[in-house]
Amino acid sequence: MAAATPDPKVADLIERHQDTLDRALTAMAERDYWSPYPEFPKAYGETGAEDGKAAFDALLGSVFAVEGQPTDGDLVGGETSPYGIELGVSYPHTEPGALIAALEAARPAWAAAGPAARAAVCLEILARINARSHEFAHAVMHTTGQAFGMAFQAGGPHAQDRGLEAVAYAYAEQTRLPQSAGWTKPQGKREPLQMVKEFTVVPRGTALLIGCNTFPTWNGFPGLFASLATGNAVLVKPHPRAVLPLALTVRIAREVLAEAGFDPNTVCLAAEHEGGTAAQVLAVRPEVKVIDYTGSTSFGDWLEDNARQALVYTEKAGVNTVLVDSTDDYRGMLNNLAFSLSLYSGQMCTTPQNLLIPRTGIATDQGDKSYDEVVADLAAAVDGLLSDDARAAAILGAVVNPGVLQRTAQAAGGEFGELALAPRPVTSAEFPGATIRTPALVKADADKPDDRAAFLGEQFGPISFTVAVENTAAGIELLRRSVREQGAMTVGAYTTSPEVEQALVQACLDSGVSLSLNLTGGVYVNQTAAFSDLHGTGANPAANSAYCDGAFVAGRFRTVEVRRHG
Amino acid sequence: MAAATPDPKVADLIERHQDTLDRALTAMAERDYWSPYPEFPKAYGETGAEDGKAAFDALLGSVFAVEGQPTDGDLVGGETSPYGIELGVSYPHTEPGALIAALEAARPAWAAAGPAARAAVCLEILARINARSHEFAHAVMHTTGQAFGMAFQAGGPHAQDRGLEAVAYAYAEQTRLPQSAGWTKPQGKREPLQMVKEFTVVPRGTALLIGCNTFPTWNGFPGLFASLATGNAVLVKPHPRAVLPLALTVRIAREVLAEAGFDPNTVCLAAEHEGGTAAQVLAVRPEVKVIDYTGSTSFGDWLEDNARQALVYTEKAGVNTVLVDSTDDYRGMLNNLAFSLSLYSGQMCTTPQNLLIPRTGIATDQGDKSYDEVVADLAAAVDGLLSDDARAAAILGAVVNPGVLQRTAQAAGGEFGELALAPRPVTSAEFPGATIRTPALVKADADKPDDRAAFLGEQFGPISFTVAVENTAAGIELLRRSVREQGAMTVGAYTTSPEVEQALVQACLDSGVSLSLNLTGGVYVNQTAAFSDLHGTGANPAANSAYCDGAFVAGRFRTVEVRRHG
Repeated sequence: MAAATPDPKVADLIERHQDTLDRALTAMAERDYWSPYPEFPKAYGETGAEDGKAAFDALLGSVFAVEGQPTDGDLVGGETSPYGIELGVSYPHTEPGALIAALEAARPAWAAAGPAARAAVCLEILARINARSHEFAHAVMHTTGQAFGMAFQAGGPHAQDRGLEAVAYAYAEQTRLPQSAGWTKPQGKREPLQMVKEFTVVPRGTALLIGCNTFPTWNGFPGLFASLATGNAVLVKPHPRAVLPLALTVRIAREVLAEAGFDPNTVCLAAEHEGGTAAQVLAVRPEVKVIDYTGSTSFGDWLEDNARQALVYTEKAGVNTVLVDSTDDYRGMLNNLAFSLSLYSGQMCTTPQNLLIPRTGIATDQGDKSYDEVVADLAAAVDGLLSDDARAAAILGAVVNPGVLQRTAQAAGGEFGELALAPRPVTSAEFPGATIRTPALVKADADKPDDRAAFLGEQFGPISFTVAVENTAAGIELLRRSVREQGAMTVGAYTTSPEVEQALVQACLDSGVSLSLNLTGGVYVNQTAAFSDLHGTGANPAANSAYCDGAFVAGRFRTVEVRRHG
Repeated sequence: MAAATPDPKVADLIERHQDTLDRALTAMAERDYWSPYPEFPKAYGETGAEDGKAAFDALLGSVFAVEGQPTDGDLVGGETSPYGIELGVSYPHTEPGALIAALEAARPAWAAAGPAARAAVCLEILARINARSHEFAHAVMHTTGQAFGMAFQAGGPHAQDRGLEAVAYAYAEQTRLPQSAGWTKPQGKREPLQMVKEFTVVPRGTALLIGCNTFPTWNGFPGLFASLATGNAVLVKPHPRAVLPLALTVRIAREVLAEAGFDPNTVCLAAEHEGGTAAQVLAVRPEVKVIDYTGSTSFGDWLEDNARQALVYTEKAGVNTVLVDSTDDYRGMLNNLAFSLSLYSGQMCTTPQNLLIPRTGIATDQGDKSYDEVVADLAAAVDGLLSDDARAAAILGAVVNPGVLQRTAQAAGGEFGELALAPRPVTSAEFPGATIRTPALVKADADKPDDRAAFLGEQFGPISFTVAVENTAAGIELLRRSVREQGAMTVGAYTTSPEVEQALVQACLDSGVSLSLNLTGGVYVNQTAAFSDLHGTGANPAANSAYCDGAFVAGRFRTVEVRRHG
């Protein structure tokens, strides 16, 4: 059955966003740079920055209304900014049963809307989110601790890019079959057999997004929009420390849905206090058929083991490695690595943790460098990058939560090993209450069991290890094993040797991780660009899926065929 | 990393099969009738039938060599033909550990070959299987009990179609990303950022195909070729009663692989005696990353619950329904249904089991018919279709195994309810030892608990129920619930009412099953055509996947990216 003719409002949305959708489909096939969402704050109008700040300020201390969503009357909240300001936002609470009931009631009309209408509604949601990128930047900044510049880009346009990418993949996947097809089979001299066949996308049901603390929008939008664009109702369960960016998202989605004639409860918000168990309760509800999750390995594994009624897409912990063999741009390498380690205080799932360096040293364009020289030069590069507190704060952002702060203190106290660079507090003039730390560089030896125990576990936060390895070959083996056993979102490497490069590529193919080679300029191993780079591979323990590929969307719906004589 | 330049033999295969692959890609997008494999036995040369029979006869009583595959020296076998002839084929046995070791050793070169080379090798395998369709027909006939005509078509060209369809989907999915792409991001007045990115398909690992008794090739080829084309090594574990068709397949695959320069152990055979536990043992091996299975619900559920290291694609049991509301071609409907119930003695996973008929009767072009008249007329239609033993045998085939025979005897004894049509033995002149039965039609009432218990369970084999329902609306509700709870591979319906049709379509969308409407000619609800019809939906308990869609192939590989400055 073809989708019903959309009502005029939906038809208008389809027309309005058709070019963007088409361009996104081209971009994801070509993989060149593209984005419809400007990444520079100044692109958002003369008063954009001011208006966004004002909108954010107006949220502080408020009750965040989610019009039309059932609630039990309780209010939950308690987000605290890593920058030390009081957020004081409270959100309506809803019992899981009432949430599921609302989603199930909303679901059929959305399921029947068809891929084109759903893509258009999703693109309108993204367009409105985009227009409020300044407001989102503040919301992301004050829940995650990202510096404003990063919160604006990664939490705004780059997250929107990933959302749009998911919508485009979902649209492409749902339209691989025609809505209707004739089938004529010759029968020799007899009349041919003739049939008409109609193909209808059937969404799975209700989807659950379990948000994370550090990248609520960037890691949340792919799953949210993939599920929504494939016709599932979506329940958004933010991390209790990072509710606001996803609450804004839900509210905008509900506005657009309602304006387009759909039940706003197609997207609902499940806010809760820190320490709540909504995720566990919701994840095993029989109505929940798709789950997207970013967070700890332990809860990700729990979801995979227990939410058996659902397709579960997880991004969990990992240990990211950079192998340093040789370079023809020593300075560029050091600066690139220093930035990678410092950006958002190492609190990215893509930040390198272990830098493997041959204990016999490396060849560079500035002569051979011993292991100790490389470590010292890297420490100096980080130190130099962060020498000015204002600049440091703009790169580091703030420490996202007490767990990371405690780990940083352990590193500072030498618990993980000898320090090549001690972390230090940084003061923000704008936010005197901010908790800001520079990264710790810990020296380690791949052949010492205590060291291995430290650097082979994920030490999430501003803690990296300069790991001495016997030689490059031993480093590649360690890399391969560590990716296979601990998982990794990223691997980087520096080498001028084609043989080493070949061995590295093979190790990454074997262990299932993507590789950034010889980054010495303005591209960092931590960053991936939508429509071009895959984020994660789904081929090692760090994640069972990637942003974004066919597998990320193909299972979120099924196809039902109706056939009859033509 | 782009796949290495293929060696000349592989390049030749790519060139030879490019047109077929291109045509398949077009067909699966257009969904019109297409097949490169003729379905008429006479299309295979003047001596094709004779040569195929001779080749099959030469296999009887032989030891089936699998050159180059490790073996422990034991021979296993024991297949018995439902037509009463002795097969006497024995197969080399290999310990699971040795099989896995051989596959793991073969895997890397196949994984590195790239999508184009793999598609070409798969198409060559299919072409050679196709050329031996007569030999396969005998092998399928004498392991499954299918009549020769069906064994030829469904076991030969139609199975090959499904294999080719899987190869084409796998190729399309693996080539959605370019092998290499440039990325240029403008930086205002500064030099743009430039990167080169390479995307490499990384297969999951070793795949396991667990074959079934009734359709070893038709149900086996999709998973086998989907896994192989996506670069996985494949271990073929046939049903102990239907080894020969898949053993032939494995031998041909190994020949082609070896000729193309690959390790023949990329495809291995795990033959075992009936009652063996190879499937359970192999399914939980850590190296096994993909499993395709067709068979009982209990073992399918066991696989889903226990083979957690693998992606598991299952087709299990279900209860298929046909709802009869009204028709403008009563005779056509009766004949069509009679054939559907009789074909291969109801031993298709797609055979209708429950025919729901309003107890108040139905409207037809031949006047209103009471429930009893419809049942009597259907029984007469079946009886008429099968009145001649030779013709009956050509439609019915033979009873596949003692379990089905016993169930048929229970039906004949009235254990499932009052008989509208008693099953009777049919004698084959050609195969006096064949076990052939006509279908039983059992009368049932949807409102009687004992009847419900009988018809709501899967009674696999030549047993169908004419279920009296209160009215059409009650029938639609029963259909919806039965699909949701028991699962179904197919639903059929007859109605002249647009309102009833709409309600039926909605019930099928809700419960996730495909619908064949008003079939009165040469297309049957049991049959689906590759490149056009989906087999199963993956949206109800009968199967978690479908032949063939993006979801069937997208998870069988992952993508690793390597990027560097451009």
